[in-house]
Amino acid sequence: MPTHETEVVIVGAGLAGLMAARTLAAEGRGVMVVEARDRVGGRLLNEPIGDGKVVEVGGQWIGPGQDHLAALAVELGVETFPTYSQGENVIEHAGRVRRYRGTVPKLNFAVLLDAERAQRRLNKMAAEVSLEAPWETPGAEELDGQTAETWLRRHVRTRGARALMQLGIEAVWAAQPEDISLLHLLFYIRSAGSLDLLFDTEGGAQQDRFVGGSQRVAERMAEELGPGRLLLEAPARRISHGGQGVRVEAGEHTVTGRRVVVAVAPSLAGRIDYEPALPGLRDQLTQRMPLGTVAKCMAIYEEPFWRADGLSGQATSTRGPIKLTYDNSPPDGSPGVLLGFLEGTQAREAGEMPAAERRSAVLDCFARLFGERARTPDRYVERLWAEEEWSRGCYGAHLPPGTWTGYGRALRPSIGPIHWAGAETAKVWNGYMDGAVRSGEDAAREVLAVA
Amino acid sequence: MPTHETEVVIVGAGLAGLMAARTLAAEGRGVMVVEARDRVGGRLLNEPIGDGKVVEVGGQWIGPGQDHLAALAVELGVETFPTYSQGENVIEHAGRVRRYRGTVPKLNFAVLLDAERAQRRLNKMAAEVSLEAPWETPGAEELDGQTAETWLRRHVRTRGARALMQLGIEAVWAAQPEDISLLHLLFYIRSAGSLDLLFDTEGGAQQDRFVGGSQRVAERMAEELGPGRLLLEAPARRISHGGQGVRVEAGEHTVTGRRVVVAVAPSLAGRIDYEPALPGLRDQLTQRMPLGTVAKCMAIYEEPFWRADGLSGQATSTRGPIKLTYDNSPPDGSPGVLLGFLEGTQAREAGEMPAAERRSAVLDCFARLFGERARTPDRYVERLWAEEEWSRGCYGAHLPPGTWTGYGRALRPSIGPIHWAGAETAKVWNGYMDGAVRSGEDAAREVLAVA
Repeated sequence: MPTHETEVVIVGAGLAGLMAARTLAAEGRGVMVVEARDRVGGRLLNEPIGDGKVVEVGGQWIGPGQDHLAALAVELGVETFPTYSQGENVIEHAGRVRRYRGTVPKLNFAVLLDAERAQRRLNKMAAEVSLEAPWETPGAEELDGQTAETWLRRHVRTRGARALMQLGIEAVWAAQPEDISLLHLLFYIRSAGSLDLLFDTEGGAQQDRFVGGSQRVAERMAEELGPGRLLLEAPARRISHGGQGVRVEAGEHTVTGRRVVVAVAPSLAGRIDYEPALPGLRDQLTQRMPLGTVAKCMAIYEEPFWRADGLSGQATSTRGPIKLTYDNSPPDGSPGVLLGFLEGTQAREAGEMPAAERRSAVLDCFARLFGERARTPDRYVERLWAEEEWSRGCYGAHLPPGTWTGYGRALRPSIGPIHWAGAETAKVWNGYMDGAVRSGEDAAREVLAVA
Repeated sequence: MPTHETEVVIVGAGLAGLMAARTLAAEGRGVMVVEARDRVGGRLLNEPIGDGKVVEVGGQWIGPGQDHLAALAVELGVETFPTYSQGENVIEHAGRVRRYRGTVPKLNFAVLLDAERAQRRLNKMAAEVSLEAPWETPGAEELDGQTAETWLRRHVRTRGARALMQLGIEAVWAAQPEDISLLHLLFYIRSAGSLDLLFDTEGGAQQDRFVGGSQRVAERMAEELGPGRLLLEAPARRISHGGQGVRVEAGEHTVTGRRVVVAVAPSLAGRIDYEPALPGLRDQLTQRMPLGTVAKCMAIYEEPFWRADGLSGQATSTRGPIKLTYDNSPPDGSPGVLLGFLEGTQAREAGEMPAAERRSAVLDCFARLFGERARTPDRYVERLWAEEEWSRGCYGAHLPPGTWTGYGRALRPSIGPIHWAGAETAKVWNGYMDGAVRSGEDAAREVLAVA
């Protein structure tokens, strides 16, 4: 087995791991990144669609307040462009497909008011949550004792507003309201700033995209890291951490160092063999941070025909299985790309279908929302993230009830020479690319403070 | 690496794995069991206390309805004896310690009535749950959309009854009511028969004990299996399952066979590397079945002094941290052993204390409940199951909200030549030793049906 020596070993070449490596390298520290896949980027992945163009089958957006990711992209020379948002949006609800302008769909006024009030109440409750220590939030036990579903059932009166809120939650967490602790929902809202920021395209987390695809950010970091500091196809299986430092066994390689930054999602970090074994509280936390379930589905057409029809390509459907769509065409609008998400229940059910059946279900949806032309794309691209061995879900992890209050204190603290990074450890923009970048910086600072 | 060939490889030498091996061997099939630890028994473990006597620091009881475990014990010549239950019980609630006779403590009548009614309602709801497919239970989505805590808050009016119900839930699941889906709570009740069976000593799941300790059942099975069929200190790290059969890499050993029975808790099964990787739904399920948190604490005295004082040694305290005690003395009553459980929150908090502080907190409790004499045992024995690398929690796994309905269908079905066993897969007495035995039989039958 090839053996390598460095100062800090980084496990995972997603944004968090690469940012930790970049930050440490900038301070003159020796780093070596080990990555299970044959590529960098983790949950970011460009898929070429010809002519040097790509679509992103993983994370893709950047929005206001995501300053660390934005600054990094500028440094790396990766540019952004606005998500296409011109024209009318579409909503399918209660058996009808309607077009509307702006952010408020044409629905029953009582439903709109009810959803608006729910959103405002959640924002207000979220403002009380501690990002450092969610378990110290006033009323934490009661908030963490219930699911988001319980809150919706109790506080949202109309069935229509519940359906909209459920759709919004599925879209943000790739999970069902019943999967998520109310406290975690509020933590996540606070971590981003507001539910509006999470939901919105213009002015929100879906506002802008990266020219050349989001994975470019990771690739550029890897390029700058330089040769010999990144080992691909090297899944970390075992981390020994005696008094003398760390020894990481990753695929065919062994890397020794003084410290290690583990920059993969907590449930995957829990699958690594630690010697000595980690404290029970930490291990049990990793049993309680499941990753969401999502499939990203894209239909590619010669042109974005919906634009000519006065449509933005953005649609929501409470019927599904695709509940949310976007125009995901390249910056020049060619070819036309419709993006649809399968999330939570829909992603699980679609995940068990034969591929042809799943494609047909997705295109049926697109046809209902954008007309029959949508049924016959030139190409269909999809990615089911639960099937990916080195992600095992997307977008990120959520916490079920009882977890923040019972185990949350084991999420961030380092254990001896082992530091934790990843979007799931972030205080700001938890679960997002920006949070991943911040978590990498934080872990690097932790290391610099002690070594 | 030593290589072995067999027909069926079994991963895990707990009751489930050994029972699968025993059942297959009885049908003339070749089996080989690989076990991570240097002993058999999994979550069963005898600790010698001198004079050839033991206390059990893991699972220990057998009760009515646990017929498969009972029959097995008879076959193996392991005898049982009744849990000591003579004399008065003790309850500490609302700042007072009181003695009482029988099963109903002397508490405020409204509290008793409220708790009794809650218990009856849960039993009635549980009777509707499907053991084969809990997600097909009428109203499954609503039941699985909430925590047991939400149900208690809504349906149990008095604070005292809520405290008693919480104590009962902690005692049965080693988890807090907020950790557990209401649907799972009901499934588990139905799986045992009733909440009364789960709670009770005489007539319930804590009725009897094994002479020589429960681990004897596993040890006797291992003895009968004979030499060369059990590999200890062989943690299964990788299972390759091509068309030609299976290949299990376990510590220094490689074992090939036609099929494999994985008989460890789902979250630990999720940490094994499968080649090819398992379907997303199955993997994501293993991210959603956390093990409970419990520490079993025993103080050993020259004699069971509480007996002379007219006490059974059984106590409940809503104050804690020990909320539940038993007389755990050997059959001849010598030495005297007081057993106390730290569960859920208490187990987590105690797990982070220095050992001396934890011991002192436990003995403080014993002294409040049984008098000052309890403060000075000859010996103190404890086991924190979250710290155990090859269990990572006890008694068993519970399902948080959304899991049965979203992922439950991936719990039991075999995947190619990979079969699943373990107390968590059992339909009857799920989570108990009896369930583990049944699950081993079921997995063996599955294998026999196809190979």
